[in-house]
Order: sequence, then C-alpha cells, then structure tokens
Amino acid sequence: MFTLHWKPVRTSALPIYKQIADLIKGKIETGEWPVGSKLPTERALAQELGVNRSTVVAAYAELSAEGLIEGKSGRGTVITNNTWTLLAAAPPPDWNAYVHAGAHQPNLPAIREINQAEFIPGIIRLGTGELSPELFPKEKMQSVLRRLIAQIDALGYEEPKGLLRLREQVSRYLLGKGIEASPDSILIVSGSLQALQLISVGLLHRGSTILLEKPSYLYSIHVFQSAGMELYGLPIEQDYQDFLRRLTDVKKLKNAALLYTIPSFHNPTGRVMSEENRRKLLSVCERERLPVIEDDVYGDLWIDTSPPPPLKAYDKTGSVLYTGSLSKTVSAGLRIGWIVGPVPVIDRLADIKMQTDYGSSSLSQWVAAEWLESGVYEEHVQEVRKQLRKRRELALIVLHKYFNDIACWEKSGGGFYIWLKIKADISPEKLFAKALEEGILLNPGNIYDRNDRQHMRISYAYAKPAELEEGLYRLSKIIREIKS
Amino acid sequence: MFTLHWKPVRTSALPIYKQIADLIKGKIETGEWPVGSKLPTERALAQELGVNRSTVVAAYAELSAEGLIEGKSGRGTVITNNTWTLLAAAPPPDWNAYVHAGAHQPNLPAIREINQAEFIPGIIRLGTGELSPELFPKEKMQSVLRRLIAQIDALGYEEPKGLLRLREQVSRYLLGKGIEASPDSILIVSGSLQALQLISVGLLHRGSTILLEKPSYLYSIHVFQSAGMELYGLPIEQDYQDFLRRLTDVKKLKNAALLYTIPSFHNPTGRVMSEENRRKLLSVCERERLPVIEDDVYGDLWIDTSPPPPLKAYDKTGSVLYTGSLSKTVSAGLRIGWIVGPVPVIDRLADIKMQTDYGSSSLSQWVAAEWLESGVYEEHVQEVRKQLRKRRELALIVLHKYFNDIACWEKSGGGFYIWLKIKADISPEKLFAKALEEGILLNPGNIYDRNDRQHMRISYAYAKPAELEEGLYRLSKIIREIKS
Repeated sequence: MFTLHWKPVRTSALPIYKQIADLIKGKIETGEWPVGSKLPTERALAQELGVNRSTVVAAYAELSAEGLIEGKSGRGTVITNNTWTLLAAAPPPDWNAYVHAGAHQPNLPAIREINQAEFIPGIIRLGTGELSPELFPKEKMQSVLRRLIAQIDALGYEEPKGLLRLREQVSRYLLGKGIEASPDSILIVSGSLQALQLISVGLLHRGSTILLEKPSYLYSIHVFQSAGMELYGLPIEQDYQDFLRRLTDVKKLKNAALLYTIPSFHNPTGRVMSEENRRKLLSVCERERLPVIEDDVYGDLWIDTSPPPPLKAYDKTGSVLYTGSLSKTVSAGLRIGWIVGPVPVIDRLADIKMQTDYGSSSLSQWVAAEWLESGVYEEHVQEVRKQLRKRRELALIVLHKYFNDIACWEKSGGGFYIWLKIKADISPEKLFAKALEEGILLNPGNIYDRNDRQHMRISYAYAKPAELEEGLYRLSKIIREIKS
Repeated sequence: MFTLHWKPVRTSALPIYKQIADLIKGKIETGEWPVGSKLPTERALAQELGVNRSTVVAAYAELSAEGLIEGKSGRGTVITNNTWTLLAAAPPPDWNAYVHAGAHQPNLPAIREINQAEFIPGIIRLGTGELSPELFPKEKMQSVLRRLIAQIDALGYEEPKGLLRLREQVSRYLLGKGIEASPDSILIVSGSLQALQLISVGLLHRGSTILLEKPSYLYSIHVFQSAGMELYGLPIEQDYQDFLRRLTDVKKLKNAALLYTIPSFHNPTGRVMSEENRRKLLSVCERERLPVIEDDVYGDLWIDTSPPPPLKAYDKTGSVLYTGSLSKTVSAGLRIGWIVGPVPVIDRLADIKMQTDYGSSSLSQWVAAEWLESGVYEEHVQEVRKQLRKRRELALIVLHKYFNDIACWEKSGGGFYIWLKIKADISPEKLFAKALEEGILLNPGNIYDRNDRQHMRISYAYAKPAELEEGLYRLSKIIREIKS
C-alpha cells in the first residue's frame, strides 16, 4: 500500500539506511502513514528503492529502536507510535477503523489489482475496455479546443441537468438513432458509471433486485450491490431465446425492480440483440411493468453492419432509461455521458447529481458539445470503425493461429470484445497471476460472472497491434504450459 | 416541473391551440411526460408560451377528449393515459413511485428553488457563493488552454488518485501553506462537495454524529444526512471561546465521529479562527481522538491579512482530512478539488471514487495542473483579492447607507460573505418570496441553521457592483415595508 516515490542519494554523506529511516520517520510524524498501518516488507521496499535488503533491515532497526515501529509475528512490521504520541501518550484517531466502516464496500480485489497493474510500465493489456491511446483523435481534439478557446467566457456551475448547448446536441444526435428526446429529458453525467450510481441511490429501494444478462459488465462494478441491491443474472446465448422465455417468470419470482441490458455489442460477449428480440424484450417489460436501463455505450462502434435501433427508439411508454457516453468513442478522460428518460425521473436524478458533485466539468461539457455540433464526432467515429475492423481482423487471425485447439470464440460485429472460451479446466486466479508475471494483464471471465471459470474478455481496442499479437501468443503458451 | 421550451408558430395554418395539443401529445406518447404526472397549470403554460389562457384551455380540452389527460379536483390536470396504453391497456412502469423511492433525499425545497431561480434572466443574486463571471480569468484560461493543446496526447482514464502531475502540483502548492503532503496522500476530486460525499459513504457508519459549527455551509447540503448521519451544531461567536469550551463535552455526549470546520473565512459568517484557537481546537481533537474535516476552500481569498496556517499544517498525528478546491478561486466549472490525509484513508476514498465516476475529468485535471505549475494561479489570486477588496468596500458602504438602523454585521476579512443580522422579526420565507418577486435572489440564514430567523448570507463576490448596490437598496426597502 505504501510506496516512497524516491531514490536514495548515493552521493550523500548520510548512509542510505539513515536516509530511508529519516524519510519514513517524516511520513510517520505527519500522520501520512498512520499508527496501526503496515510498512512494506523489507524485500518489497528494497526492490522499489533498488537497494540491498540489508539496507532496509538497518533502516527498520533504527525506527524500531526509536519505538516507532514493531515487527509483529505474522503481521509484518507495524507502525506503533509516532513522535507526537511518544510525547503526548495519547493515540491519534484510529483511521483504520474508519477505513473499514462506511456503507460502500471496497472494490473487488481482482478489479483493484487490475486498476493498479494498468500502470505497470510495459505491461500488455489484453482486456482493457478503452480505445488505445494510439486512436486518440489528437488533431481533432486540438481543433475543437482551438475553436472553443475564443468562445469560453466563463466556466461557472451549469444548470442542474447540464450545459443546455450540450443537451441540445445530444438530443439532435439521438434523433439519428430514432430516439426523440427533448433537452429537458436529458441529464449530463460524468460517464455512464455515474448514471448507474445516480439511478441506484435515486430511484431504488435497498433490497431491490436487478435483473441482468449473465455474464455482464454490471457484475464487474458494484454500484448496485453497494446500495444494498441484489443482482440476478439470466444467462444469454447468441439467440437470446432462453433469456426472453424466462424473463417473465424470473421478474415475478424475484419481484425484480429493473432490468439492466446492453443490447448492442454486449460487454463482455460482443453480442447484438436482433430487432425482433428487442421488440419482444420491450413488450415483456411493458406488460410486466419492468423498467429497463439500456446501456448503449458501444452502439456507434459497429464494424460490419449498424445494429438495430436502441430499445429506447421503440419505447412509447417511457419504460426505458437510456444511457450513452463519449468514453468509448472519443475520450474516457472527458468523463461525459448522458441519461435519457421521463422528465420527472431526469429531474430527480439531476437533483441528486447536484447533491453529489454540483454537475460535471463545464469544460468537458463545452468540448463535448463542440464535438457533436461540428460534425467532427461523426467523422471520427467512422475512422474508429475502420481501425477497430483492422484490429478485430488481426485478433481473429492470431486467435485462429494459436488458440484453435485450446479455445473457441464468436466473431464480434462491433464494440471492443471477443469472449474467449478456454477448452480446459484452468484456475482463473492461477492464469491471471501467471500472465501478470509474464507482463500480460487479463480480464478473466469471473469478473463478469462469479461462477465462470472458462472465459476471458479479450479486447482488441486497447493494445497496439504488435502487442496484441505478442500478448495473445504468450497467453496461448501460458495456457498450454498450465494445462500440461 | 414541465416546460415546453417552444414558441407557437403564429404563421402556421394550424391553430395555436392545436399546435400546443400536438406538442404535448408527443411528450405523452414517447413517455417523456409519463402517465400520472401533473401538467403545468393553464395559467403557467399560457405565461410560458405568451398566449391567452383560453388557448391553453382549448388545447387541454382536446387532449382530454382524446382520453390522454384528466382534470382532477384539487390535483390539477393529470396525464392518465397515452396512446400506447390506450391501445394495449397495460399501464407503463410507475416511475412516480420510483422517484419517491431511493435512499437519497431530494434537496431542500429552498435550495432547489434557489438552484432554479439562479437561471431567471435579469435576477440579482445577492447570496451566490461563486466568483462573478466578470472575474473569470478569461485571458489566463485561454493562455493555459493554448499551452495545453500541444501537450495533450491522450485523454484516457487517470490513476485512481488522479493525474500525477496535478497531485505533484497540489503537493507543492500546499507546502506554501505549511502542509507537507506527498502526492500519494492526495486525492483529486470533482470539487469539495464530492470530497464530503466520499467521506460520508466511505468512512462513516450510518447513525454517526458529525459535529459542526452553527451556522454552517454543511446544513445547506445534505450529503451526511442522506447517508443516515446526524449533524450536531455548536454555535460559534467571533472568539470561538464557548465553542472550544463545549467541544469536549459534546464530543463525549454525542459520541461524535467527526468534526467539520471551516476555520478560514467561514461560510456563511466570514469569520477566521485565530492561530491560538486553531492550536486549542487541534489539541482537543487529538486528546479526544476526534478526526477533523478541515474545509479550506476560501483560505487563499484573504483581503486584509493572510489567515493563520490551516489546521493541517499543525497536524502531527494525521487527525485532519483537509479539503481544498479551485472552485472559489479560479472556476467552479472545472470541478477540481482535493482531499489530503493519511495514505490508507486516501486509498480508501480513491477506491470509492473509482466506483462512483472513474475519476474526474482528465481535461480539467490537465488544466488545473497547468494553472498551478505555471504560476498563473498565484498571479490570478492576487488580482481576485484586489477585486474582492473593492467589492467588500462597496458592500460595507452600501450597508452602512441603507441598513444602519435595521441590521448589523461584522466586517469580513476575506472570502465572499457578510452575515447580515436583521434587527426585526421577519419571516424568512416571506422575505425570500417578496424579494424574488422584486427580482432579488437571497440566501436566507435558515439554510445554514434551521432555527435561524434573523440572518442572511450576503455575497459580495457574485453580483456586479451596480447590481449589488441596487439589490441591497431594494432589499432594505422590502425589509422596511414588511416591518411596518
């Protein structure tokens, strides 16, 4: 947990062990490293600083002699005191107890490990659900910013639902998908994760049940679980027939409050729900009065043919809350998305957003509006589709070459993902750990379905083509090794 | 709640009442205005559209004849059906029930009213806690953006704690205030409201008690109350002596989990805690193991003399979680703030932030880093201080001229506010409503202390000087009228 971000000064008169001890003493004295916390192991710290383990041992010995730390058997080295507490003999607040309190659960350990490993230099990220930095539209973003510079008169708080100009542009953009939504029925959010967060705290009771596809992206975040809700997953196959057949019964059985679905380029399977199935789904939901959250963040990223219109385009009863975003198409760093739905629902969610963060970055909202209004968005998305096609082709060729006998997969028609099924019983934890050792970061299937032990989400969107090829090759070797 | 954002087409062959009816029919058909919602009153809609009330009556009559709406006695006109439900006889999901569910409470009605009234054209905002758009550093922001354009290579997701470059700059900036905090102990957030939000869900149990100053900004938001916590306010006077004397007992009596304080240019009173009182406060908190949230968003905005160093600068036990932001000094629209504290606490809050919105806008973070790094921030803040001084002088002169016999106040040494005390028993609701009628938006004292019926928060930061003078003059007249 603790790192020093520091290098020993080898030219100093002060011995290195003393430098280390002083540095850590500073962290302890200011309370930045609080009493009760564990220090890094001697081995880990020696590695981080590029020194011998014996140097760290000497530093810890000095801190220990001063009564600041203590080696506890089985618990590592723990901070037991700081100079202030030594002087005053009154312990500081027990932040560790606070850290374990709170209604929110910590992120899944696997997700946290992935979040951290993403920043290891040189790692090949085979599962990352983000466009490659190579595909970042640098020139287009620069031209958008250049045009904006002259226009920005003030950057204050915006209206509760977000910058009107952006909502007007989103309204116009949605019309192109067959969705009629006035700016009043649109709320600008900081990415579609925040959309789900607002829905969970603003519209649902604790203990509600959310129906969803299994596997699903929703299992990888715990926005609903943190708010005290249950997830109930209905397996999807390519044709969605069982899913649709069982939906009514499951809704009744579980008294479900909501259905969460990703009908276009589903995350993680890449599947697309057919137009017929969309109509069927909506008619079941209307009959059962089951509101729907439609997550459409991948809809624009088709490779072969455009997917059918969103559920929201057929929705004549206001049953669907629709979410979209620029994170997958233009830039995740803008943190701009939207929710579309009946006005009273949008009003309510806007009110909660105001209580949470007083609205999304105005600067990002201006930029997003200019992207949509200028037509640059449409141009860019066409280019992204071309690039995704190339990358998907490469992924399919490489998979065919190295995985034919050990895995199977469906060809994806858009979005970022191939849902790879390994034909062998391999522990996902072991595979993840082994791959990480070899410099490859995976998104194992059990992130998207707790019981899954066979799949992996392969993203062809993030890694550079050469890395994608190299990473998949190495992965196939690792799988063969573990298998044998 | 519903507005049309539309003007009748007077040149059309279609009569205006028919145009209105068709427009509303569209909203009902798509479910944007759901079944069960109330339509605007005929009077309100006629006013919005600039038509006779009889035109709206005719439009509603047509919708009523088609079975879409119904006048219900005492409840106004309600949407009872839509074409889809007429066809299918199955009601859509009852969103109204959802809107009233959810763990989060809606914002205080007064706050919501203020949020909305802020966008009434021509209104004079006498209480707004934001720098005037006139003071927006347009040229500086343009030059910062121009320098950034060339640097931005990609705008993806950032590290969980935020852009490292920004955290390094915040670390350097805090050193100038006497706070030693490494980038690891800093979390970038979307404004300091989000800081409180993350603390409330990440560190505290439901049912915890938060101690705070009375009055306090914290009463005007309900980030802690929404998470099931109690607020307990201890009155502050100018010298804080009673406050400090009672703190230990109240902490014990209430078993309080946390103290929230704004030691520099307190919101809404403008007061500054002396250095001696800061040391006393911290020593009580350390002895009682009472963690502190120090809100320092106004600290840089001193007018006469710089305030004493923040509590965090004296904190040797890691007892203080410190929050700051660029919202009050540079631009609220960037939505950039920070929390500083012990590393395990910051790790925990970063984890929750990742679950909430995957981090703040990268673009805003780049901009904030460039502001701090280039020294433009310091230049700008010096200019803001000068402008605030002029505005405060003006406010004091105008108050002296018109309020001398009807109110009293303390001279503020920085920040945005004067806490005006009216020497008469006037209902705050009545005063607020009357002022709004006269085009003046107030922040009455009961927003910051439920039982307060005497104060008003006057901000000299927002309204233009001429408006400030005019607004205060009109306000004094209104008070005199109501009084008599």
